[in-house]
Amino acid sequence: MSTSTEMSTETRTPSTAVATSEFDRDTAVTLREPGVYDADLSAGWTIIQAVNGGYLLALLGRALGDHLPHPDPFTISAHYLTPSVPGPAVIRTETVRTGRSLSTGQASLFQYAEDGTEVERIRVLASYGDLDALPDDVRTTAAPPAMAAIENCFSAADNPAPRIPGSSAIAERLDLRLDPSCVGWAVGAPSGKGEMRAWFGLADGREPDALSLLLTVDALPPTSFELGLKGWTPTVELTTHVRCRPAPGPLRVAITTRNLAGGFLEEDAEVWDSAGRLVAQSRQLARAPRD
Amino acid sequence: MSTSTEMSTETRTPSTAVATSEFDRDTAVTLREPGVYDADLSAGWTIIQAVNGGYLLALLGRALGDHLPHPDPFTISAHYLTPSVPGPAVIRTETVRTGRSLSTGQASLFQYAEDGTEVERIRVLASYGDLDALPDDVRTTAAPPAMAAIENCFSAADNPAPRIPGSSAIAERLDLRLDPSCVGWAVGAPSGKGEMRAWFGLADGREPDALSLLLTVDALPPTSFELGLKGWTPTVELTTHVRCRPAPGPLRVAITTRNLAGGFLEEDAEVWDSAGRLVAQSRQLARAPRD
Repeated sequence: MSTSTEMSTETRTPSTAVATSEFDRDTAVTLREPGVYDADLSAGWTIIQAVNGGYLLALLGRALGDHLPHPDPFTISAHYLTPSVPGPAVIRTETVRTGRSLSTGQASLFQYAEDGTEVERIRVLASYGDLDALPDDVRTTAAPPAMAAIENCFSAADNPAPRIPGSSAIAERLDLRLDPSCVGWAVGAPSGKGEMRAWFGLADGREPDALSLLLTVDALPPTSFELGLKGWTPTVELTTHVRCRPAPGPLRVAITTRNLAGGFLEEDAEVWDSAGRLVAQSRQLARAPRD
Repeated sequence: MSTSTEMSTETRTPSTAVATSEFDRDTAVTLREPGVYDADLSAGWTIIQAVNGGYLLALLGRALGDHLPHPDPFTISAHYLTPSVPGPAVIRTETVRTGRSLSTGQASLFQYAEDGTEVERIRVLASYGDLDALPDDVRTTAAPPAMAAIENCFSAADNPAPRIPGSSAIAERLDLRLDPSCVGWAVGAPSGKGEMRAWFGLADGREPDALSLLLTVDALPPTSFELGLKGWTPTVELTTHVRCRPAPGPLRVAITTRNLAGGFLEEDAEVWDSAGRLVAQSRQLARAPRD
């Protein structure tokens, strides 16, 4: 009987591991001591050599959601300090204020220099609440982005495929389908408009939630590609509002840049769920590519 | 001679005070010790009893600009914790990272409880740079807001005047001229559109700069007034990007709310200078009025 129980446990363990999505596995954090979480930045969410900023935000968001009394990021502002690399990291969180419907926290993600000292990569300030506690009222004038049907959009598997220059491990984790109007850059004919639109899902079928939206807002190719600029657009700051718990199914993401000036640009993202709700809005300030 | 010098000094002092603008006087901070600044929240920037959030942001922005090696806020994210009241305050700043072209800092504004303990009002995270060091390139598709000529817009001195319910000391400090399309709320006929547009200046003629833009983005009546909601819209978080040093002259400010849902709304602000440059973009998440 004892053996049988052990067998059963052993059988369940790998089964549970398989059931865990890539996103949840790779954004897992382990409580080291109150407010301090160990994490491991996965190489699976890199573009060229850089760890994706949305993936990093989701890691910090998970730690804060564990630390604060409220579960969901309502607004989270991230300032990116130094480039993150795959490998060990530590997240230090702080409760700034707790209230009845909102609590505010701060978190920093550090990695380790060769001598073991901590190097800060990102710092975030966030106000958390409970999306399930919100009333159902919606008075929106925002309309979902005009996008081709998902079957008429382009995935990384298509040929000729829109390709991000260099390697892109993250492409295998995402089910990204770019709207035909925004793929000119991939064949050397950028539209000249600062727009990027795509259907977004996780490749392993994991459904969206408030946390994965933090990845979604920073997962598309940069709008600067369609402006004819090929270089990198490092994020200085990214603020995301999560406005509604997303329904299951593919998300529509529209990103717009209106003002490329003085060596910087903004990227405004909207995320719409399958039920037609605007579930997240974000804006980032990024450095414009040099070329 | 000594008496004469004293006289002269006494004469100069009020003269200097007159030359200093209300905005600069009321956002002055005094270094107490490295990183710590004393301030006094003026009752001159209140709406009803609340100290204006943009004025508070400018105070924090001034302290950070003094503390960090770079002078101008490129992106500043503020999370509002508890309501501020006129009176003494202390601002504690921290350098997060310094780089060649950008430095990142954090600052908190505290006031004092009756027992003398510090109560945190606002916390900000900001990346500073030097606007004068930016290249002149502009590739913008953004267009200035459609607005009536300044002489056809409405100021608080006009009759029938658009009036903020309750007292509004800040109205005397600002030269705000609301576009005729956005004043329906003041006569009981809101447009139903989440838009507010105005010409903005400081009443004493002080010209705009990077710091005063932090006030400008949060100085108009809330868009919710034009949506027919009369209550207060307390800011949860406000992030501002300053993109260009503004030219002298009146600014055009356009604020848009597209998504009022679940008891919250976003306010997107754009600020254009007299030279036709988009000088600031901001977005805030605020609680929707209850009524």
